Amino acid sequence: MKAAYYCGDRTVQVGESILRAPGPDEVRIDVAYCGVCGTDLHIFMGHMDGRVTMPQVVGHEMSGVIAQLGENVEWWKVGDRVVVRPLDPCGVCPACRAGHSHICYNLKFLGIDTPGAFQGSWTVPAHTLHSIPEALALDEGAMIEPLAVACHDVRRGRVQPGDSVVVIGGGPIGMLIALVARHAGADVLVSEINPFRVNLARELGLEAVDPLQTDLLAQVENRTGGAGADVVFEVSGSGPGAATMTQLVRARGRIVVVAIFSDPPPVDLFRFFWRELELVGARVYEPQDFDRAIGLAAEQVLPLRRLISDIKPLADLQTAFEQIEASTNMMKVLIDTRGE
Amino acid sequence: MKAAYYCGDRTVQVGESILRAPGPDEVRIDVAYCGVCGTDLHIFMGHMDGRVTMPQVVGHEMSGVIAQLGENVEWWKVGDRVVVRPLDPCGVCPACRAGHSHICYNLKFLGIDTPGAFQGSWTVPAHTLHSIPEALALDEGAMIEPLAVACHDVRRGRVQPGDSVVVIGGGPIGMLIALVARHAGADVLVSEINPFRVNLARELGLEAVDPLQTDLLAQVENRTGGAGADVVFEVSGSGPGAATMTQLVRARGRIVVVAIFSDPPPVDLFRFFWRELELVGARVYEPQDFDRAIGLAAEQVLPLRRLISDIKPLADLQTAFEQIEASTNMMKVLIDTRGE
Repeated sequence: MKAAYYCGDRTVQVGESILRAPGPDEVRIDVAYCGVCGTDLHIFMGHMDGRVTMPQVVGHEMSGVIAQLGENVEWWKVGDRVVVRPLDPCGVCPACRAGHSHICYNLKFLGIDTPGAFQGSWTVPAHTLHSIPEALALDEGAMIEPLAVACHDVRRGRVQPGDSVVVIGGGPIGMLIALVARHAGADVLVSEINPFRVNLARELGLEAVDPLQTDLLAQVENRTGGAGADVVFEVSGSGPGAATMTQLVRARGRIVVVAIFSDPPPVDLFRFFWRELELVGARVYEPQDFDRAIGLAAEQVLPLRRLISDIKPLADLQTAFEQIEASTNMMKVLIDTRGE
Repeated sequence: MKAAYYCGDRTVQVGESILRAPGPDEVRIDVAYCGVCGTDLHIFMGHMDGRVTMPQVVGHEMSGVIAQLGENVEWWKVGDRVVVRPLDPCGVCPACRAGHSHICYNLKFLGIDTPGAFQGSWTVPAHTLHSIPEALALDEGAMIEPLAVACHDVRRGRVQPGDSVVVIGGGPIGMLIALVARHAGADVLVSEINPFRVNLARELGLEAVDPLQTDLLAQVENRTGGAGADVVFEVSGSGPGAATMTQLVRARGRIVVVAIFSDPPPVDLFRFFWRELELVGARVYEPQDFDRAIGLAAEQVLPLRRLISDIKPLADLQTAFEQIEASTNMMKVLIDTRGE
């Protein structure tokens, strides 16, 4: 089995996957597919060299089949089809003690702080596993992790049937949020400046506008009778996104910050006061978000495969990173990790 | 009866109070006291000349006694001791229709958008009245409006017994928030750079620190076992306040923006993502906040009179504005509006 190692300096080298035998409470998984996440791309670009040990196998948006059980592992058997919720919390910090272990103050993220899933064999704690049903193909299974992010975001936004929702940023996560919110009964508008993504959103039946060409605020006011949107998701991580989000929301409406802002942008706190707005941050997921994502995917109610732009072999991971970085015509790229 | 008219150009002139007979659904009140609000000071300084019609009687933090009833006024009688909730919503905008008429999109604020209470006689809609009990002196009654702001803010922050609360900014509203939160069972720390206000907070039994002299973050971490505060109130309206607020809050903790930020400050949205923080804006009050404020004041559980720095006659309103603007040793100043 093979593994793709990030070696720093924008280089990925293919080598052997180290078949680490599962210790107590661990399982070893034969990985099938692993999607390329924006975080993986950040690692490839060297932005996280201070956090990643090199050479390092990264990747966490995976699906696979249990190959071996460690001691004490109950509830699972060899052959079970699974995805991994790649969070390993400390269990003792204030966030864990308060029941928010997904945002543990000492969180280890599998595939960033530990070896990841761009390899044929991956050994992980059994507490991270979720079962996926036969109805769900393994390539779709690799979409569960980002879909769980979207389910978490929509839950944080308390989206209700009939809500008017705006998603600022139509990348993979923004698109999944839009689809999950629409499935929850919301009236969804996607704001995105990339024409490929605008067109893809429209092909998926979503309303989408380019805010550089359309007056987004006027559109939202028009759709909501002047009230403003119930929920806005900021997924662009851009200054214009941060400036726009506060303008679009109705009195007592909600903004969900999903994007990672590397620098603090100006935020219109007066608008928060004036309209009594609410802003919530949303990070990764909780177990119920994985359950919800698996349920939605198994019901085949979301066009997940339409978001998969390409499936490449492990040997092409470096090329995949380079293409995603250079291209404006990509959504999600999966890596088939099963080659010899 | 006299009235103090704001005439523009930092000038207040005393003239006659126009005894306007109450129309249908209105009452005429003999005003007793009216506190000087930060907003009144902004008007005096000319910041709101575009909104205020001159010459204009301003003021809204009042207490008084009903002198005359208009047609159709039920539930009230001449001689009733009252305070006014100085909001006149349109009733038809999206905010009003959604039940949030206190942040009506077309809100008229009595004393800003209409004549106010720095006068002996004030005619207002009967729907703005709240009764105050005999146990509550009229000077304390003039503290109800700012206390209702604090009750609203604490309610927006969902402060629970045992919560760790930080109030950034120890002016009249910040101090009232601290007192209401403490009464609700919270452990409260006030952050304030003005020594007079720090000392007053301490005299009222509140813990208070100057963040320029003390490491506020270390203090909060120490008080909360490294977790962070449950609720932070930003009442300073300052850049350092906006920069600090996100650092002090625990995972899933809450920030309440009470202050009016005239320009959008940088806000650490990464921290909102990372700790799944929540920010809510809080503006004015709802009827239940007035009821709560009157209840707390009548129970005499808050040291309201300790926040009254001075009581001056109507003729001294201009002097009061000038002193509040110049002085670092002022908290709330009341105007006795009853002189002939």
